[in-house]
Amino acid sequence: MERNEIKTLRDEAINHLTTELLPFWTRRMKDEKYGGFITHFDVNGNDTGEDEKSLIAQARCLYTLSSAHRAGYGDGELAELAKHGVDFMLGKMWDKEFGGFFWMMDRKGNVKIDQKIIYGHSFAIYSLSEYTLATGDRRGIEYAEKIFDLIQKYCVDTRYGGYWEMFHRDWTLKGPGSAGGDRKTLDVHMHLMEAFTTLYECTGKEVHRRKLLENIDLLLNVINHPVYKTGIPQFFKDWTIAPQIKFDIIWGWDRFSEDGQKGNATDNTCYGHNAEFAWLLIHALEILKIDPLSHAETLRIIFDHTVDNGIDTEYGGVYVEGPHSGGVYDREKEFWQQAEVLIGMLDGVLLFGDKKYWEAYKNVHRFVFDKVINKGVGEWFPLLSRKGEPIWTHMGHSWKINYHTVRAMVQSILRMDKILEKSE
Amino acid sequence: MERNEIKTLRDEAINHLTTELLPFWTRRMKDEKYGGFITHFDVNGNDTGEDEKSLIAQARCLYTLSSAHRAGYGDGELAELAKHGVDFMLGKMWDKEFGGFFWMMDRKGNVKIDQKIIYGHSFAIYSLSEYTLATGDRRGIEYAEKIFDLIQKYCVDTRYGGYWEMFHRDWTLKGPGSAGGDRKTLDVHMHLMEAFTTLYECTGKEVHRRKLLENIDLLLNVINHPVYKTGIPQFFKDWTIAPQIKFDIIWGWDRFSEDGQKGNATDNTCYGHNAEFAWLLIHALEILKIDPLSHAETLRIIFDHTVDNGIDTEYGGVYVEGPHSGGVYDREKEFWQQAEVLIGMLDGVLLFGDKKYWEAYKNVHRFVFDKVINKGVGEWFPLLSRKGEPIWTHMGHSWKINYHTVRAMVQSILRMDKILEKSE
Repeated sequence: MERNEIKTLRDEAINHLTTELLPFWTRRMKDEKYGGFITHFDVNGNDTGEDEKSLIAQARCLYTLSSAHRAGYGDGELAELAKHGVDFMLGKMWDKEFGGFFWMMDRKGNVKIDQKIIYGHSFAIYSLSEYTLATGDRRGIEYAEKIFDLIQKYCVDTRYGGYWEMFHRDWTLKGPGSAGGDRKTLDVHMHLMEAFTTLYECTGKEVHRRKLLENIDLLLNVINHPVYKTGIPQFFKDWTIAPQIKFDIIWGWDRFSEDGQKGNATDNTCYGHNAEFAWLLIHALEILKIDPLSHAETLRIIFDHTVDNGIDTEYGGVYVEGPHSGGVYDREKEFWQQAEVLIGMLDGVLLFGDKKYWEAYKNVHRFVFDKVINKGVGEWFPLLSRKGEPIWTHMGHSWKINYHTVRAMVQSILRMDKILEKSE
Repeated sequence: MERNEIKTLRDEAINHLTTELLPFWTRRMKDEKYGGFITHFDVNGNDTGEDEKSLIAQARCLYTLSSAHRAGYGDGELAELAKHGVDFMLGKMWDKEFGGFFWMMDRKGNVKIDQKIIYGHSFAIYSLSEYTLATGDRRGIEYAEKIFDLIQKYCVDTRYGGYWEMFHRDWTLKGPGSAGGDRKTLDVHMHLMEAFTTLYECTGKEVHRRKLLENIDLLLNVINHPVYKTGIPQFFKDWTIAPQIKFDIIWGWDRFSEDGQKGNATDNTCYGHNAEFAWLLIHALEILKIDPLSHAETLRIIFDHTVDNGIDTEYGGVYVEGPHSGGVYDREKEFWQQAEVLIGMLDGVLLFGDKKYWEAYKNVHRFVFDKVINKGVGEWFPLLSRKGEPIWTHMGHSWKINYHTVRAMVQSILRMDKILEKSE
């Protein structure tokens, strides 16, 4: 790994983050009239007017602003905007009667969907904890802890372990099937690991540490494939694998067949998710003060699976998904998977010093900068063909926002700086 | 079953309850000076002066008074005494800083042991819920729900399910081995079933119902022996059977060898516990509006195991414990096991109409009335030899109080009335 090559890519990332990505958002996200953030933008970055403020988009914007401020960007502007977001979340989205956040509001702050969805609440814990770490405003951690307590009370399966994730407003569990009340998912457990990590970083409380460790144990020994260590998307209550179905409440545009099942519904894993899991695990272990190399074998297997199966060596970038044992089902390119693999590959470099992870990083970095970034506008296209032609072109939506893109730049820059330090 | 025979035994129970048992306690339990209940009495019913107010004894007294009042006894005196107990529990034993009840106080209300022990908290939920059901005073259920919430937050193992049970004052988990922080027990899960049943009876809340059902599932399918349906006392976190050891914090005088292990540490089951489990399960199912006959096979196996192994057909009464597959290790007679088998056998009669359960009831009833009751004093001897000679003779102590004795009479009378109704 050439130092100059690393510096060049790092500077490209800094430039993108500070002159394109962050300005894209700071110039247009603040809703001066109703509070909170505007999150719906078309290919040109114009407000589409869609009358939605979703829990995940509001929370993810808060994370983005807070974490970028904590990393040293924005000269205070990001912290100010973050506070503006917290005011809306706590003032308008919090359910004062039953606790927790509503899933979907209109722009004015009226409730559109009052259900309690744990995927959204994991981001609320994550972002509110990060907000307090970044700004010192204790309101963030106060509400993050409230959500943690609600989740422990209402969402744990005390029979088989793990968390249920789909609830009515009053925290009664939703029904089975597409309502989701009989399913446990990789998605929610991984994002709870991410959330509990930052919660514990902020509080240092034993109960937060303990629940984080229990969740990591579940992820490593139940949710990940026993051989390939790849994530298995859905389970029934006793952790038998469930066919991957589409839920009534969604937070993405995963493609399903007409009957609501995935093709290859029981043998499907997602490269971006696996790389994200691996680097979030490394981060969690660091916060827990556990040596990540105590899990070297698992991390190696995951990173290698990503490199060997997920990276498109011909056109660049990361594929969508494939079978656990190797191979690819879907060769299109989703923006967020590129973002997560960037960070994961740099962690692979830092932990194992293996050049193949650097090559993979370079591959995806190039694809992102040459194809995924919407030049002159500043955000990323959400979905591209294998060759890199945009398929979906909106810049912002309730479930396409700045969390993956900004985090990928902030975290990649940090890691490239570390690699440079180590090679001095 | 002769109606006259049933009536005779029922009237004997009513007489004992109303002229001996309840007066024994109402005359001497009220601590006028420091509040709460005095719980230490010698063989003659004299206050021993032992400077202890334990969470379980205070809570069990509260249950006894509340449940007997709800069943129609005492003309209001029991409810008054119950309120006196609640005042002390909430005013003196509640930890205002970390939540939950201290384990052990002195009589004045100073903390002697500040640990948070779930066995005690299960009785706090049980008794405070019963208190509100009996008196309408909402303070009971308010604190019962607070404890439920604390237990869900701090005590659940979100990896393997079930509840941890030994905590420091601030709800950090205690260490392994005799500290108990690596053990899960039948005892706590069974008493949480009992507690959640009355909690749910009082609140009707879905989350209380859900956690009760999950706990019943654990008890039936993990904690009970797969073949004999007898209770297995101790487990490690992943539900592998743990050798039965003595904990640093105890609530009984189970006999252990010098190294703190039970004889037959991994093949030991207790007849009174099994019968208690069965009738508490029947009661839980009734409160849940689930037909107990949906579990007919399990209930039959447990009741038959009790009759075939636990009942002493020569000298009368119930033995202490023996191996799961049948036979007896310990032929002494503990008071509380007699009490629980009485109720269990009457439930066997009601559910299955089987005469052998009535014969077993009569056997234990006779043994209790002829040997266990301390005549002229009114309470029961805690431990007797096989033949019925008293070994331990105190009438009250931090872990020998009125909960088993009064409950056995109240519940047996109710059941004999039902049997009489059915046979009309």
